[in-house]
Amino acid sequence: MTGSTPVPFTADDYRTRMERAARAAADAGLAGLLVAPGPDLVWLTGYTPTAITERLTLLVLAPGRDPFLVVPTLEAPDATHAVGAPALTLRDWTDGKDPYAATAALLDPSGRFGISDNAWAMHLLALQKTLPGTSYAALTDALPMLRAVKDAAELELLAAAGAAADATFEEIRKVPFGGRRESDVAADLADLLERFGHSQVDFTIVASGPNGANPHHEVGDRVIERGDMVVLDFGGLKDGYGSDTSRTVHVGEPTDEERRVHDLVREAQEAGFRAVRPGVACQEVDRAARAVIADAGYGEYFIHRTGHGIGVTTHEPPYMIEGEEQPLVPGMCFSVEPGVYLPGRFGVRIEDIVTVTEDGGRRLNDTTRAMVIVD
Amino acid sequence: MTGSTPVPFTADDYRTRMERAARAAADAGLAGLLVAPGPDLVWLTGYTPTAITERLTLLVLAPGRDPFLVVPTLEAPDATHAVGAPALTLRDWTDGKDPYAATAALLDPSGRFGISDNAWAMHLLALQKTLPGTSYAALTDALPMLRAVKDAAELELLAAAGAAADATFEEIRKVPFGGRRESDVAADLADLLERFGHSQVDFTIVASGPNGANPHHEVGDRVIERGDMVVLDFGGLKDGYGSDTSRTVHVGEPTDEERRVHDLVREAQEAGFRAVRPGVACQEVDRAARAVIADAGYGEYFIHRTGHGIGVTTHEPPYMIEGEEQPLVPGMCFSVEPGVYLPGRFGVRIEDIVTVTEDGGRRLNDTTRAMVIVD
Repeated sequence: MTGSTPVPFTADDYRTRMERAARAAADAGLAGLLVAPGPDLVWLTGYTPTAITERLTLLVLAPGRDPFLVVPTLEAPDATHAVGAPALTLRDWTDGKDPYAATAALLDPSGRFGISDNAWAMHLLALQKTLPGTSYAALTDALPMLRAVKDAAELELLAAAGAAADATFEEIRKVPFGGRRESDVAADLADLLERFGHSQVDFTIVASGPNGANPHHEVGDRVIERGDMVVLDFGGLKDGYGSDTSRTVHVGEPTDEERRVHDLVREAQEAGFRAVRPGVACQEVDRAARAVIADAGYGEYFIHRTGHGIGVTTHEPPYMIEGEEQPLVPGMCFSVEPGVYLPGRFGVRIEDIVTVTEDGGRRLNDTTRAMVIVD
Repeated sequence: MTGSTPVPFTADDYRTRMERAARAAADAGLAGLLVAPGPDLVWLTGYTPTAITERLTLLVLAPGRDPFLVVPTLEAPDATHAVGAPALTLRDWTDGKDPYAATAALLDPSGRFGISDNAWAMHLLALQKTLPGTSYAALTDALPMLRAVKDAAELELLAAAGAAADATFEEIRKVPFGGRRESDVAADLADLLERFGHSQVDFTIVASGPNGANPHHEVGDRVIERGDMVVLDFGGLKDGYGSDTSRTVHVGEPTDEERRVHDLVREAQEAGFRAVRPGVACQEVDRAARAVIADAGYGEYFIHRTGHGIGVTTHEPPYMIEGEEQPLVPGMCFSVEPGVYLPGRFGVRIEDIVTVTEDGGRRLNDTTRAMVIVD
């Protein structure tokens, strides 16, 4: 909750990240980066305000200058406890003062800046008004790969989060499904994720029978029945890094069609995984998985992209989607999660987090991808 | 979590709110309102996406047109379950398609629009790029009072949330403080808020001794000692509406100075409350409370505004701050929370939620404001 959450990084690690980000900004022709509370700020400084409010908190990174953190006076004491604080100069501002004028004084008045995707529109509008000569690009558009390549310590944390999610699956497959509500199984998933070290549970999707055909169905009061397919998709943050895995289980014996569709998705997931290697464009991972499903005649029922990056969030670039030509780089981490969704009937999704190695990919989830029969 | 969270409002209630908002937009010279997931969207439609991601979800309200909800195809099934959905037309878009072009088709290409304060910068930048003839104002700047005046049903929900927070205080004052960590007492506060019906705990500040001098200190591992002042400030959402109250307790007998400062803050809080009546400017509430503290020579130690609005969030307009000339209107709800913070020593804050009545103010928190001695 506060700026003093323990992390396995030092002020020097954050200083290095900020320097790297400032250089990347300069290389992209930007006069600087404006970083709002959220994953970018956590990654660059280790700082998480206790709450994200209308009060401006903004990290200003400009090539060749020291990093500044504009912060409400009220929150300055917390900010000084962030691990990255020694690498920052704090510029605090008091209620009633204009934080945008104070920020503008740190900026090139005719520069182009990258700004966090999730920065509030009200802050961006105020900066545009205060400095009409500036222009802005969303950080993900300007520097989509800023956080995408993970270092060794980050990979270790992502692997540990993946292992905790796998341990959760190994336990959840033993619980009774039939006759219980989706929400009961979801509560079990949340408990297990926490038991295995997650500090934050982001999603615990339990989508049974026809609910499985809605890929974003979270959880409901539906009582799971014998004969149901059940999509499980769960994850969150452990020690600041994300987990996200899906397995589709069956309550009792499946029909031939259910088995066929599950095998198909498994084959697609394998094809997506096998496509992962340095230099391959992200869209090739999508194409590889999608081709398997399309060739079997189910193309119209695979209604989402194949994957998304993961790091200090459970959802970030790179995206495995048609049109994304970014080449894969060792250290990138993302999901490979094809699915087939048959409206009104059932859905199947199989998902692992995969990291790019020097010569291929490595799964950070590795529970069985065969269909698990549950009670 | 999902669009189907039960609320005490009907589709007609949401239709009425959307119509009122569209009229207010027209009166303010706006071509429409663009409403992002968050409190504005909840208030206008009852819809909360399962997660706020980089995928665009946006309510488009334009005077004289039906409301549109632009929503990712994946999330459309959830959106249709929102209570307000019958009053909306859904426009869903699929991964890989351009949601901004689809949104732009619904907008006056040379119009000025109000956009939710917390809309993501990436979405605003994409709209600005797609429709270069449009301009934008933050919703809070354009229509600061859109959600500020609560109707009877909302007041009842806010009063119930306040009563639950009061019940929490009545219990927490009985628990042992001395010898326990701030984080232990904070966990008790969270449990109590949930026991008394809160679905979401937003903050449980326990700031003991010198930590109390940092108004945004959340909670830490400090062991509370006999002789400490302890600022308690806690709240969250119950049935979708907020609570937020502060009391400052003392472990054992206070010193004369501690008692004097507490009495001073209590007097300031009373003065702020007594200033509340229709037609009075918000800043007068701040001035009334601040004058008491300044007259006693502690002005420099009251380092934040006197209050903030509350509704579907625990932090929203109107703000009780110098410079805010908005007149109070019956049905507005906000905190009155002066404080004195003596660096390195202790702090005192006393806070009630107050609603404006036809002839004055009514407190929605009403536990004793005398200093409570705890163990």
